[in-house]
Amino acid sequence: MVFITRRERFSAAHKMSRHDWSDDQNMEVFGKCANPNWHGHNYTLWVTVKGEPDAETGFVMNLIDLKHIIKEKVTNKVDHKNLNLDVDFMKDKFSSTEVLAIEIWKQLEPEVAKHNAIMHCVKIQETENNYVEYYG
Amino acid sequence: MVFITRRERFSAAHKMSRHDWSDDQNMEVFGKCANPNWHGHNYTLWVTVKGEPDAETGFVMNLIDLKHIIKEKVTNKVDHKNLNLDVDFMKDKFSSTEVLAIEIWKQLEPEVAKHNAIMHCVKIQETENNYVEYYG
Amino acid sequence: MVFITRRERFSAAHKMSRHDWSDDQNMEVFGKCANPNWHGHNYTLWVTVKGEPDAETGFVMNLIDLKHIIKEKVTNKVDHKNLNLDVDFMKDKFSSTEVLAIEIWKQLEPEVAKHNAIMHCVKIQETENNYVEYYG
Amino acid sequence: MVFITRRERFSAAHKMSRHDWSDDQNMEVFGKCANPNWHGHNYTLWVTVKGEPDAETGFVMNLIDLKHIIKEKVTNKVDHKNLNLDVDFMKDKFSSTEVLAIEIWKQLEPEVAKHNAIMHCVKIQETENNYVEYYG
Amino acid sequence: MVFITRRERFSAAHKMSRHDWSDDQNMEVFGKCANPNWHGHNYTLWVTVKGEPDAETGFVMNLIDLKHIIKEKVTNKVDHKNLNLDVDFMKDKFSSTEVLAIEIWKQLEPEVAKHNAIMHCVKIQETENNYVEYYG
Amino acid sequence: MVFITRRERFSAAHKMSRHDWSDDQNMEVFGKCANPNWHGHNYTLWVTVKGEPDAETGFVMNLIDLKHIIKEKVTNKVDHKNLNLDVDFMKDKFSSTEVLAIEIWKQLEPEVAKHNAIMHCVKIQETENNYVEYYG
Repeated sequence: MVFITRRERFSAAHKMSRHDWSDDQNMEVFGKCANPNWHGHNYTLWVTVKGEPDAETGFVMNLIDLKHIIKEKVTNKVDHKNLNLDVDFMKDKFSSTEVLAIEIWKQLEPEVAKHNAIMHCVKIQETENNYVEYYG
Repeated sequence: MVFITRRERFSAAHKMSRHDWSDDQNMEVFGKCANPNWHGHNYTLWVTVKGEPDAETGFVMNLIDLKHIIKEKVTNKVDHKNLNLDVDFMKDKFSSTEVLAIEIWKQLEPEVAKHNAIMHCVKIQETENNYVEYYG
Repeated sequence: MVFITRRERFSAAHKMSRHDWSDDQNMEVFGKCANPNWHGHNYTLWVTVKGEPDAETGFVMNLIDLKHIIKEKVTNKVDHKNLNLDVDFMKDKFSSTEVLAIEIWKQLEPEVAKHNAIMHCVKIQETENNYVEYYG
Repeated sequence: MVFITRRERFSAAHKMSRHDWSDDQNMEVFGKCANPNWHGHNYTLWVTVKGEPDAETGFVMNLIDLKHIIKEKVTNKVDHKNLNLDVDFMKDKFSSTEVLAIEIWKQLEPEVAKHNAIMHCVKIQETENNYVEYYG
Repeated sequence: MVFITRRERFSAAHKMSRHDWSDDQNMEVFGKCANPNWHGHNYTLWVTVKGEPDAETGFVMNLIDLKHIIKEKVTNKVDHKNLNLDVDFMKDKFSSTEVLAIEIWKQLEPEVAKHNAIMHCVKIQETENNYVEYYG
Repeated sequence: MVFITRRERFSAAHKMSRHDWSDDQNMEVFGKCANPNWHGHNYTLWVTVKGEPDAETGFVMNLIDLKHIIKEKVTNKVDHKNLNLDVDFMKDKFSSTEVLAIEIWKQLEPEVAKHNAIMHCVKIQETENNYVEYYG
């Protein structure tokens, strides 16, 4: 079994805060991430799939297909958007990187399965000092 | 003369659009950067100053001082903020990286001059594929 | 289960050599790392913890807490220090990256456990060409 | 058990195409990678081995030994070469990154075993947007 | 005046050798770059233009335009190609990074001038250890 | 005229302190860089030379020659060394990055001149957040 990974990038605005908490509570838990007027990031997304290399092509999965799936299901929806306001699959969800990784997995997993490959990992880097990994 | 550079980072939301233009005009010129609900970036900022190394310390300027100036005058004001709504020195200005570099220069230049060094360059990277440099 | 990783950096001096070996033996096994007057590195440290995202915050663990733990237990003790002479938890130990990773794990694991998260990995990069991972 | 990783780099030419397919078929499946006159990459190779740190040295395996093995068995054979024409262990094989990772594993595994360490992973990055991992 | 830079990437094969030299001469001067069966690189290209930020947009030049120019005039012609055999503007030229930078400048300069900006620099990185800059 | 740059790396120990100052004075000016037992860095060095590409080779200067000069005159002397104690050309000098850049320039300039190229810049990065440039 071989693992292949495709990297994509998107730039988005978001904030971390709960409507049912006071400003002070939000600031205490979420710190500067609770800024009411939003902030944003250049997110980097790595999608890893696994499988046996195909006997005819030497590919686990054609990276052109993987690229198109990520573009259609994820980056077209989140790039230059507001994660809290503009993204269908993030509606009524926290925009923590943890939750984002889980929701992106749900977007990609059924599509990857159609190409005889198995979803292995969604990794998202929010800043150069932190990233999240989700393995389903 | 020797040039020293300090790198700092900040994450901010912004959008590119003109109130006096239609949505279509804004979309045509600014593309996805005109998204009404904002987007954001991890900005990287490099500040370069120049001077003769001090005979007592070997330093053009103490990097701890340069770091504090950048923090006080710039990153504390822009990090986890909205460049269009939250930042005093960007009020009523475009939030293009070009304009941001010029305005950051204006914030830093008088402070650097107090430390016997000369401002040389403000460089800002918005994404891994583009950056801007301003030399005063 | 989701994995989150925090990156920190520190700069330290060290050397690789055994008191009970001759200079020639040390040079043969440890090469230029045995230089008696020390050498040093910019070490990069990634600490990965795992857990379920919290229902109230969307966080596996608040990264601000993780950052403070790493600072207090590790980087404050090793940054701009000599790993062989200045660091309590490295006393009488080899300063190989392997051993350093194990000792840093021991520093962090009990603190992470207090925050309802599980230590998963300590990764240390010594130069751009080598790194070490320890999973407990 | 501790995991140590050595990074090496090589620059090589290759192409993806099948002699038994028409030009159109090759172009459809392999896209621009099928260019008859070749193209090339700066490949980055990470080799991870695992084991217990040695009681006398603190090392899982001396990185100087690992470096020499990779140089002799892999990079000397592929650096500034054509993967399809010049490399003995790639003869009559696809030069997909997947297949390359498997064949490099086969080159390295017996040599690493002679140093009391266990091969864990071969990772190859072809461009900044894709990489492959093979765990045997 | 503000300087803006756009980064693009391409992967290409090439070799360094002179038809009028013996194999030994070519090997002596060009080393492993003279391999008859080609080798290749992931090239990174930075194009810097300068000008005054436009009063209506805050842009020196719309980066979308700069991106299209580089794509049409350069990357579409060199990406996944052989620099010595496939590229019109490199015909009968050395494929050294120096010459490549000069020829790419010639491709871009007239197009950039049509957008009220001034070409400033073409920078090409061939490997992580070397790059070339040309200022016209 | 074309500019070519070669990157090299070295790992070294050093400290910043004056014998004629008290410990308190040293700590006040140099902060944690004054640690008596040393600290260290992975330094990255970029050497830029300029000239006309040679009509016979397309090279400003053969990078193999530039690499050998840097190795012989600089990296062999500083890699895995103590900048304050082990390096002939740093004897009785501050080991600030500014001074290091000037002294490395003096080592390289006469050698580069022998190859019909002109020294342009020595750039040294000490950590990912600061670097120094010297143009002679």
